[in-house]
Amino acid sequence: MTPLVALDWGTSSLRVARLNEQGEVLHEQASDRGILNVPADQFATVFIANCGRWARAEGTFYLISGMAGSRQGWQEAPYCPCPAGFDDLARALAWLPTPPGLAAGSRVAIVPGLCCEHDGVPDVMRGEEVQVFGALQMTGLDDATVVLPGTHSKWVTVRGRKIEHFRTFMTGEFYALLRQHSLLARTMAGDANTLDEAAFDLGVDRALNGDSLLATAFSARTLALFDRMSATALPSYLSGLVIGEELRTRSDPGAAVLVVGAPALTQRYARALARCGMSARCIDSRATWQGLWAVARQLGDLT
Amino acid sequence: MTPLVALDWGTSSLRVARLNEQGEVLHEQASDRGILNVPADQFATVFIANCGRWARAEGTFYLISGMAGSRQGWQEAPYCPCPAGFDDLARALAWLPTPPGLAAGSRVAIVPGLCCEHDGVPDVMRGEEVQVFGALQMTGLDDATVVLPGTHSKWVTVRGRKIEHFRTFMTGEFYALLRQHSLLARTMAGDANTLDEAAFDLGVDRALNGDSLLATAFSARTLALFDRMSATALPSYLSGLVIGEELRTRSDPGAAVLVVGAPALTQRYARALARCGMSARCIDSRATWQGLWAVARQLGDLT
Repeated sequence: MTPLVALDWGTSSLRVARLNEQGEVLHEQASDRGILNVPADQFATVFIANCGRWARAEGTFYLISGMAGSRQGWQEAPYCPCPAGFDDLARALAWLPTPPGLAAGSRVAIVPGLCCEHDGVPDVMRGEEVQVFGALQMTGLDDATVVLPGTHSKWVTVRGRKIEHFRTFMTGEFYALLRQHSLLARTMAGDANTLDEAAFDLGVDRALNGDSLLATAFSARTLALFDRMSATALPSYLSGLVIGEELRTRSDPGAAVLVVGAPALTQRYARALARCGMSARCIDSRATWQGLWAVARQLGDLT
Repeated sequence: MTPLVALDWGTSSLRVARLNEQGEVLHEQASDRGILNVPADQFATVFIANCGRWARAEGTFYLISGMAGSRQGWQEAPYCPCPAGFDDLARALAWLPTPPGLAAGSRVAIVPGLCCEHDGVPDVMRGEEVQVFGALQMTGLDDATVVLPGTHSKWVTVRGRKIEHFRTFMTGEFYALLRQHSLLARTMAGDANTLDEAAFDLGVDRALNGDSLLATAFSARTLALFDRMSATALPSYLSGLVIGEELRTRSDPGAAVLVVGAPALTQRYARALARCGMSARCIDSRATWQGLWAVARQLGDLT
């Protein structure tokens, strides 16, 4: 396998890692040049600025995942339909013209996102598919339910090392909207990263009762109004309400549950899942690098 | 009964009406001096500026409903617990010192809001209770389910002319957050007041399927992404999603359903309710004046 430089190029950040042939990360760096911070004709320039230290290494493979492959990104990599495995992703890579300045034999490609459909409605992901394959790589599992919490959380069903289907929940975005822009914001205080466990659990349990989030969210207002919850506990309570709402419609998947992402968030999900009687294994963000490495290795098999 | 000047003093507006002894509106006016636009020590001044034309009529009764009775308003009128009828509201009025400039025998009072509790969580309303009693007055009903759509929609259960309990849904606020501040806002166009009926119905039906709003809301994004719905139809679709979500947890109430408010909104609710097999009668905003008049009349009986 050729040397791999893996790029996780999302909406708000660009992370780059250099991996050896065993998939170990030799070097890692991050910048704020997410696609929203890159003018349409500057993607190659930003790419070289962030990968230039390896530009003279011949035959390097640069593999990119995330929103860089969207219509607003560097080059559109059309969605690959589910079910999809490593090999399907590897076959559907969008190859880019080699930017000037790279050594001979260098290749640059973008991993496509995935799409699926339920009840006539399309669903999409970009970047999470790589994390899912990374999590499979890290655990050796062939079947799993993989949860990727975030602005738009994904619930992904994997069977036989293929992503069968998935579902998006706007959990993180709803939390941010309510926390920052709603009436509830006025009575909340404190650091979003500090978890009040009792308040969080209360929120999860209330959501699991089956009421609509439209109703349960208002309880954050009235509990404050009647001094039944402190302003500093309310953000944790709200976090529990929205995460519990996400879990409400997910029944026990009957397969291993992996939660992939930053520990502060995956630990909240594991806690909420435990309240539904589901146990989960948390996988950190190295899953991205392992997934890109696995796709590159798959490509090595194919070519 | 003494002459009545009724004030609907809400968060963003102040409406005033003069009613005769039969409850007919003789004069009506509105200003933008809602409580958010009134400095704490200026309520009496704003009151006189808006009611001064009747200041010389002796023995006038000024009855106020809405957020003017909240902690941030003119004077706090503590919440009255449910169940509550006309007589309970009349007994719990918060009487104000008569502002200078009013003729002899003038009286000024604020109608309290209501509170109730379900599963250990308090719920509150201020102003809607008066609309509910107005709707009973206008229909002659003793038992009803009264829906008051808005920023914070209320579902109110009335038995024997008493409000037994109620529930708040942040439907209008969620719609506004998603329409203005979310990722979905970017792909939406058009006037929020123009209803695309087919898109609205599709949204209602999707919500009634039982999925979480966290998931259904994302369909507004993907339908746009795959060009399956026009940018101008999307606001109606989103409106259907949130109203349908509000209705999802409401089972057939087994009593007359009244929807009270501005026709553009109540007609949407009647349309959505019909899709759940419920028929509704729409009542316009005159319900506020009829409710204040009924409370004042009740007071006449009491004193």
